[in-house]
Amino acid sequence: MPDGYKAPVPTLERLATYLTVLTGFKSKGVDTVSSIDIEQHAGVNAAQVRKDLSLFGGFGKTGVGYNVTALHEHISKILKLEHTQRVLLVGAGNLGSALAGYPALRTENFKIVAVFDNNPRKIGAEIWGISIKDIASLVDENRSLGAKIGIIAVPASWAQQTAERLVEAGVLNILNFAPVVLRLPEGVTVRNVDFVQELAVLSYHIRSESEPG
Amino acid sequence: MPDGYKAPVPTLERLATYLTVLTGFKSKGVDTVSSIDIEQHAGVNAAQVRKDLSLFGGFGKTGVGYNVTALHEHISKILKLEHTQRVLLVGAGNLGSALAGYPALRTENFKIVAVFDNNPRKIGAEIWGISIKDIASLVDENRSLGAKIGIIAVPASWAQQTAERLVEAGVLNILNFAPVVLRLPEGVTVRNVDFVQELAVLSYHIRSESEPG
Repeated sequence: MPDGYKAPVPTLERLATYLTVLTGFKSKGVDTVSSIDIEQHAGVNAAQVRKDLSLFGGFGKTGVGYNVTALHEHISKILKLEHTQRVLLVGAGNLGSALAGYPALRTENFKIVAVFDNNPRKIGAEIWGISIKDIASLVDENRSLGAKIGIIAVPASWAQQTAERLVEAGVLNILNFAPVVLRLPEGVTVRNVDFVQELAVLSYHIRSESEPG
Repeated sequence: MPDGYKAPVPTLERLATYLTVLTGFKSKGVDTVSSIDIEQHAGVNAAQVRKDLSLFGGFGKTGVGYNVTALHEHISKILKLEHTQRVLLVGAGNLGSALAGYPALRTENFKIVAVFDNNPRKIGAEIWGISIKDIASLVDENRSLGAKIGIIAVPASWAQQTAERLVEAGVLNILNFAPVVLRLPEGVTVRNVDFVQELAVLSYHIRSESEPG
C-alpha cells in the first residue's frame, strides 16, 4: 500500500461490515473463518472479500482461512478503531438519545464522550450516563476531549451552525442526520444519513397491483 | 420514459433530495426556482439537476425556471408519495421511538401506521400516539392496513425473522437499521442504514497529527 493511499468509500463500507461480522464470530468463539463464511454473513461475495483483504496486506492462507482475532485487529487498525474513537454528539432529542444508547457503537470502539444541546431544559440532564452540555461550550470542551468525529442530530434549521462549530472545535469528520446539505471547508468529511431519502427510494420500488412480477 | 423503466438508485436519492428542498421552498412561499437555486440547497450541480428532471418529462422553461408546486407534485408522483405512504415500524426501543416521532417523515407523506414489538411490557403502550402491537399480529394487522414499506429497528438477533414476517405480510420494501445482512426472496427491496459503518468510514478519514493537509 503506497503512503497516502486512500481507500474508496465502498471498500471502507465493506471493511466496516467485515469488522461487524468478525465481532460476531469472536463473540461465538470462532477461531478461523474462510472468505465463504464472511460472504454468508456480510452479503459480499467471497472473491470480493479476498480482494478487499489482500489490498491491505497478505491475509489468510489458501485452504486455511483467516484467523478471526488477527483479522479483526488488522481491520480495526485500518479503520483507526484499534483504540477507542471519541465522538461528540450534538442534539439530545429522540434521535440523539437513541444514538447515545446504541449498543453496537460501543462494541466497535466508538465512545460518545459528550452530548451537547441548546435547550436550557436539557442542559445539565443526563442521557445514558452522559451529562448534556451547553452547545456554547463545545469548542472549549473539545480542547480536553480531543474528539475528531461529531454526530449532528439537531433539527435541519440548526444543522449548518452546528457543523461550523464542530469544525471550529477541530472535528473534521461529521455524521449528519439533519436533512440539509452542509457547506463546509475543504478537508471536512461529511456522511449524510437521510431517513426520508431512504424511504423515498423504497417507495419508488413499490410495485403497483397491476404490474407484472 | 419507456414502460417498466426503473431509475437507478443514485438518481432516486437525488430526486428525494430535490423533494425535500422543494418542500423547503414551498414552506417559504417561493413560486419559481432555477436549477441553480436547487443546486445551492441540494448540493447537486445544476447541470445534473436539469438532467435528472428532464429524464422524467420536460420540466422548466429556459430562463423561466421551475414552478415549485408543480415540480414538487411531479417528483412526489414519481416517488409514489403523492398520497400518504403507509409504513410499519417494528421495534419500539429507542431508535424505533425516535423514528416514530421523526417530523420530516410526515412532511414528506410517510405515515407510520403501526408499531410492533415482542416485549410484553411494551405491547399496549403508546409511542407518539400509536399503540404498540404484538409482533405476532403483524401479518393479520397488515391485511387491513395494507402498508408496503416496513422499518426494522430491532436488535440484530431478531432482524432476520422480523424481515421474514414483513415479507409474509406483503411488505416487500424494507428499511433495515439492524447491523445484519438480511437474506430474503428476490423481489424484496432492502435498504440498510448501519451507524457503525457510517462512523467507521469517517474514522478511516481522520488525519493523524503528523499527516500533511
